[in-house]
Amino acid sequence: MAKRLSSPSDYHGLLDKYDTWLFDCDGVLWQGDRLIEGVPEVLSLLRRSGKKIFFVTNNATKSRKNYKKKFDQLGVEAQVDEVFGSAYASAVYISSVMKLPKDKKVYVIGMKGLEEELDEEGIAHIGGTDPADNTLAEFHLKHFTPDPAVGAVLCGLDTSINYTKLSKAFTYLRRNADCVFLATNTDSTYPSAEGLLPGAGSISAPLACALGRQPLSIGKPAATMLDCIKAKYQFDPTRTIMVGDRLNTDIEFGKRGGLATLLVLTGITQESEVVGPEASSTVPDYFTNSIGDLRAALS
Amino acid sequence: MAKRLSSPSDYHGLLDKYDTWLFDCDGVLWQGDRLIEGVPEVLSLLRRSGKKIFFVTNNATKSRKNYKKKFDQLGVEAQVDEVFGSAYASAVYISSVMKLPKDKKVYVIGMKGLEEELDEEGIAHIGGTDPADNTLAEFHLKHFTPDPAVGAVLCGLDTSINYTKLSKAFTYLRRNADCVFLATNTDSTYPSAEGLLPGAGSISAPLACALGRQPLSIGKPAATMLDCIKAKYQFDPTRTIMVGDRLNTDIEFGKRGGLATLLVLTGITQESEVVGPEASSTVPDYFTNSIGDLRAALS
Repeated sequence: MAKRLSSPSDYHGLLDKYDTWLFDCDGVLWQGDRLIEGVPEVLSLLRRSGKKIFFVTNNATKSRKNYKKKFDQLGVEAQVDEVFGSAYASAVYISSVMKLPKDKKVYVIGMKGLEEELDEEGIAHIGGTDPADNTLAEFHLKHFTPDPAVGAVLCGLDTSINYTKLSKAFTYLRRNADCVFLATNTDSTYPSAEGLLPGAGSISAPLACALGRQPLSIGKPAATMLDCIKAKYQFDPTRTIMVGDRLNTDIEFGKRGGLATLLVLTGITQESEVVGPEASSTVPDYFTNSIGDLRAALS
Repeated sequence: MAKRLSSPSDYHGLLDKYDTWLFDCDGVLWQGDRLIEGVPEVLSLLRRSGKKIFFVTNNATKSRKNYKKKFDQLGVEAQVDEVFGSAYASAVYISSVMKLPKDKKVYVIGMKGLEEELDEEGIAHIGGTDPADNTLAEFHLKHFTPDPAVGAVLCGLDTSINYTKLSKAFTYLRRNADCVFLATNTDSTYPSAEGLLPGAGSISAPLACALGRQPLSIGKPAATMLDCIKAKYQFDPTRTIMVGDRLNTDIEFGKRGGLATLLVLTGITQESEVVGPEASSTVPDYFTNSIGDLRAALS
């Protein structure tokens, strides 16, 4: 059963128990472009207490460098190597876990941030923002010569999605049984600053439908994302806590990884989903109204 | 158990038992742009025997008039009102079954053939081939004013699919619980003359994913398509036979409608799926190699 945190000693206890803190961003640190009250103080407190901090987000349209800019704009201290987006995690997975040979390429359905992370890991890629694939001109299979070096299709949120990209990705995956079908994440919706829109899961859905199989998803709640963090950094899962606002991604992710979990109520999830007769089957170890509540540990 | 037809008396028997003949097109009458041997003779035999013929296809990119042109090009006699595509069926469903009020509109994800069928039924529509929605420019929810007259979203194969169309359709369906989510058909793939490509089901899949619910599908195997035929023509189901090449669409469609079913092996299905230890749970009443086999009844 989820424990509601309320007293200063509750928050002090949490600080004592956990050395590594993983934070989801949207709905936890900010809502759209509005910073949640107390975030800078709480992160500063954790840093002063010697805690290791990571920011773990499924948004794959931004590279870590782009994310760093958002933190800067909102006045929140963060380092590029503390930011762990599903674009970066996908690149790490392809290079370090899947170990795609250097002479192979990735066909990308996704945006610039995703390509930047692949570049950083030295992974060759085609598709993505290539103007030739960003077209609504009629697609002709007979004019398409598949690149035999493509060993994976990686699909993330792509607001330039079109039939040419879908047809090429489908052809790579259908004709070559060794071609790996990856998704940065499978969030069905994307909470843009202007409102809810189709998410990365909706962009890979046509391929999953046409192929009759699901992609391997890198982002939360899959353990893949945590494996990628582990491949780059060392930490003790039993002294690590995941802080998030969504039960089916953040909290599920923490639980699958053997981490403690803290839910905040500043995002998607309502308290009624955590306690009471309508509670979800996935509940966090702890919950509190807002990350700002941790300021009580300052007292 | 499926009965293999082989002798002239088998085919004579079929002609005696069934007055109304429904034919799938691709894989039954033709393969891509190649007519299957004996089709003109068999259709001519059925017509001379006083049989009523319908062509029942899930392809919603063509209107009946476009289909008539394909029949003409291949030298097969057919009338426009014998052709029953899922574009036409969708229009009939919206006007005659759903009875969308005349002051309401349909938001279309689909191509010209689908719009033509909506026009024929006098159904107002937006989206579709409108240049404003056929763009890869960034979509901004804040610049989009949903049309309050939209009472349904109809999704078919659309090779100009893009994020603007998906976002608009998603917004109509998410914000208005009374807006009906329709698909012309949900075939996962589309057998183009050049090879297999993502089908209509792959085009509605992003919406189904983002919304967390499936569309009402008009095409085979749903009974909706047969209801539409019945709304326009009268026939006795017990004296009607569906001829097709796919178990999960054509044969399932016939079975759900209480029709007899005849499978031909000139398309998707292999004989091993019909008889023997690996047979599907959906099998036809009869099967034969090719529709051309019915010429035996001429003897």
